[in-house]
Amino acid sequence: MAVDINCDMGESFALYRLGDDDALMPLITEANIACGFHGSDPNHMRHAVRSAKQHGVRIGAHVALPDLSGFGRREMVIDRAEMANIVLYQIGALNEFLAVEGLSLSHVKPHGALYGMAARHEHIAHAICDASEHLGVPIFGLAGTLHEEIYTARGLGFRAEFFADLDYDDNGKLIITREHDAKDPAEVAAKVLRAVDEGIVLSAAKKPSNVRAETICVHSDTPGAVEITQAVRAALGDRLATRADA
Amino acid sequence: MAVDINCDMGESFALYRLGDDDALMPLITEANIACGFHGSDPNHMRHAVRSAKQHGVRIGAHVALPDLSGFGRREMVIDRAEMANIVLYQIGALNEFLAVEGLSLSHVKPHGALYGMAARHEHIAHAICDASEHLGVPIFGLAGTLHEEIYTARGLGFRAEFFADLDYDDNGKLIITREHDAKDPAEVAAKVLRAVDEGIVLSAAKKPSNVRAETICVHSDTPGAVEITQAVRAALGDRLATRADA
Amino acid sequence: MAVDINCDMGESFALYRLGDDDALMPLITEANIACGFHGSDPNHMRHAVRSAKQHGVRIGAHVALPDLSGFGRREMVIDRAEMANIVLYQIGALNEFLAVEGLSLSHVKPHGALYGMAARHEHIAHAICDASEHLGVPIFGLAGTLHEEIYTARGLGFRAEFFADLDYDDNGKLIITREHDAKDPAEVAAKVLRAVDEGIVLSAAKKPSNVRAETICVHSDTPGAVEITQAVRAALGDRLATRADA
Amino acid sequence: MAVDINCDMGESFALYRLGDDDALMPLITEANIACGFHGSDPNHMRHAVRSAKQHGVRIGAHVALPDLSGFGRREMVIDRAEMANIVLYQIGALNEFLAVEGLSLSHVKPHGALYGMAARHEHIAHAICDASEHLGVPIFGLAGTLHEEIYTARGLGFRAEFFADLDYDDNGKLIITREHDAKDPAEVAAKVLRAVDEGIVLSAAKKPSNVRAETICVHSDTPGAVEITQAVRAALGDRLATRADA
Repeated sequence: MAVDINCDMGESFALYRLGDDDALMPLITEANIACGFHGSDPNHMRHAVRSAKQHGVRIGAHVALPDLSGFGRREMVIDRAEMANIVLYQIGALNEFLAVEGLSLSHVKPHGALYGMAARHEHIAHAICDASEHLGVPIFGLAGTLHEEIYTARGLGFRAEFFADLDYDDNGKLIITREHDAKDPAEVAAKVLRAVDEGIVLSAAKKPSNVRAETICVHSDTPGAVEITQAVRAALGDRLATRADA
Repeated sequence: MAVDINCDMGESFALYRLGDDDALMPLITEANIACGFHGSDPNHMRHAVRSAKQHGVRIGAHVALPDLSGFGRREMVIDRAEMANIVLYQIGALNEFLAVEGLSLSHVKPHGALYGMAARHEHIAHAICDASEHLGVPIFGLAGTLHEEIYTARGLGFRAEFFADLDYDDNGKLIITREHDAKDPAEVAAKVLRAVDEGIVLSAAKKPSNVRAETICVHSDTPGAVEITQAVRAALGDRLATRADA
Repeated sequence: MAVDINCDMGESFALYRLGDDDALMPLITEANIACGFHGSDPNHMRHAVRSAKQHGVRIGAHVALPDLSGFGRREMVIDRAEMANIVLYQIGALNEFLAVEGLSLSHVKPHGALYGMAARHEHIAHAICDASEHLGVPIFGLAGTLHEEIYTARGLGFRAEFFADLDYDDNGKLIITREHDAKDPAEVAAKVLRAVDEGIVLSAAKKPSNVRAETICVHSDTPGAVEITQAVRAALGDRLATRADA
Repeated sequence: MAVDINCDMGESFALYRLGDDDALMPLITEANIACGFHGSDPNHMRHAVRSAKQHGVRIGAHVALPDLSGFGRREMVIDRAEMANIVLYQIGALNEFLAVEGLSLSHVKPHGALYGMAARHEHIAHAICDASEHLGVPIFGLAGTLHEEIYTARGLGFRAEFFADLDYDDNGKLIITREHDAKDPAEVAAKVLRAVDEGIVLSAAKKPSNVRAETICVHSDTPGAVEITQAVRAALGDRLATRADA
């Protein structure tokens, strides 16, 4: 079965640059484009959409909490209706940049703290669905959490995501950090193959947990993101999904 | 010929309320809904869209400069590409709220300082067009300015707007203020009829200028907006355009 | 012992008005002025400081989470050092408006969700202290919570606050809401006297809990805030603290 | 006469990094620290203040238009009272970070578009003074513009600034760009010496104009800023001002 590589793109803001999008875009098959609430702005969204189009990369909405000053990595208490409206707003903003380029949305992916909140809080997982169900595209998430349970129960597509550059704890739970540490590309590639081929991830203490890996995430702001992505791409070989233009 | 009444709606923000939208919505035929850059937020946009739908009011995108702290009423120096991207982002955000309600956009209207800038600066008028031309909807503006000249030259629809509650100077130029003054409803109604029937507006010094009035704007944050709108509506009588649900 | 009446002031933002500050300022003895993170902006802060000065009202910094779109009423996960820096920034901004008026700060009061977080999370209560201990002014809070425990342990002054217009639950815990409900002024006055004279508050189910009331808070955005404050002021009579200019 | 080297510091925002502050701080004598309106946030301001303290670098407030998404480099129409309040707010925020470190402010420097506006618009130059005159510190600006004329007429100190890494036009006017181009360090050093020793700057067309250079500015976001600053420092030699801790 084909495996995708997804990467968070378009997270630069104003004069601030984040992530080597130009180097990463040719290496991936799915781009999660920031929508201005944790990072990005209309200029960077436009640029990221055009770059993804040029490289045949499918585009998803990387929706976030309203927290630019915290890069969307600080959890907030927020109710379902407000969360759904906030997500809908972001999806729409990105959708218009796709519309002018003749493209359509391929997926939705909650960002940072929102991703973690949706895995643990039913009302947040439902809010993501409330904002997405008219779109007919899958949502990325973690297998075995409320992501899978609620997105599937609601009849939306779910795609199991594996994080190449984040650690998992002894219970197989993803550890979401505000800034990401550097990783050894070879180790990351081995970790990805283990997830894809064996459905296993190891914690820092080498304790194995079951995982599912339909799409592999590499963060563009992880130090060495380009080398990591190249290593993952090489390791996947024929199993890498084809691109939109293939 | 039918004349519309348009009003800026959904400009409340967070806990802050602005304009008596609930009282105004039943009185108007076109709602310009704020898109979060000068006012509004996802919750208020959702509410305004639903309210407009309920009353059969057509919905336009009220796009603005990125200036929440100035309510979009401070002019800024901004280039064409950036302006277009900023407008596109806002149109998209609103469009998604329309999509989930099964509605479609009826027009685009630049807000506040952006409206004034588009009337005088070619690159800004073009930026509005750049962001709107894929939509197939008209743009509201002032006849005899770059609004009409450039929107028409670009092949987009143009609708001539007359401001019921703002003053015009001796040269027929609209005077855009940061906060709007109270007006006498009867005087406003007479002014609107003069514009619709005779194509004339008077300055404070009673100097007449030519105007065109295909849609009449009342600002929701003008003191007495409800009474003004009722008076305008009564004055228009049969000339009032029918609503979307009529 | 003298009892103060404090009120949140200066929470208007841009064109948005919140609270009838002009009517409330003559009725209170302490103003908690918003610092731009949950409400207010430089213009409204300047106006509120001048108004408080004119009426001899002491001025405290009403510091908040970085959450303008949620009016600081959504809890966030935030670490101690960042929280302290965010509070320090706000205190400084207000302090400069005091400096140009020849005034000095009288107290610090966390706003909304930050207030609740400081009552329950040690690292947040400490962050408030970290940002305040060089000031030599007391911090407002709830007796019997981490407010009192940590502010006192750190050697900062603590003043016990009682909320006239919010409800307390069966365990005597304050119920912080995002929007405040209207209250009957006579009932509020009776509730305040019970707190001041007997040290008791009743829950909705009439269950009594112990409270301490050195300063009474009325929210300016509670419907009927002016009438409530007048009733509280009348009820306190001679017990009302004198003002800064008395 | 001693010449200072000043640099814009603390302009990073959230996870976004801008400028190699750690490498530049040891090379300069004056730091203009961003105050959160064009760049920076409470965490980065705290860090920049501590770093300047450690290296004996004097600290000024780098005050800006309210335009984070444009990095304060887009001119805005803003009135005097509002501009003064916005500047006062920023000065205060920085002053509190200085207060907790036992430091005091050494100067005020308007940033980006505000700098240019103050050179050309009397009401903006006055607004800077309105917000600064209680401080007793000089304001940085361009000799021969409204900076010098109005700051001096108001009785505030004025310090003539020369921009090492920006170009001047044939009339000796500074060309302020949104993003800065790379420069050759040796050429920049020669340009600085010409300004300091001869009071002359050359345009791209080699046309000379008179300038005054009491403090030399290098932008931290100019490519090669560290090498440029090292070259300027070496060129100044004994003329370099001593630092606060010397």
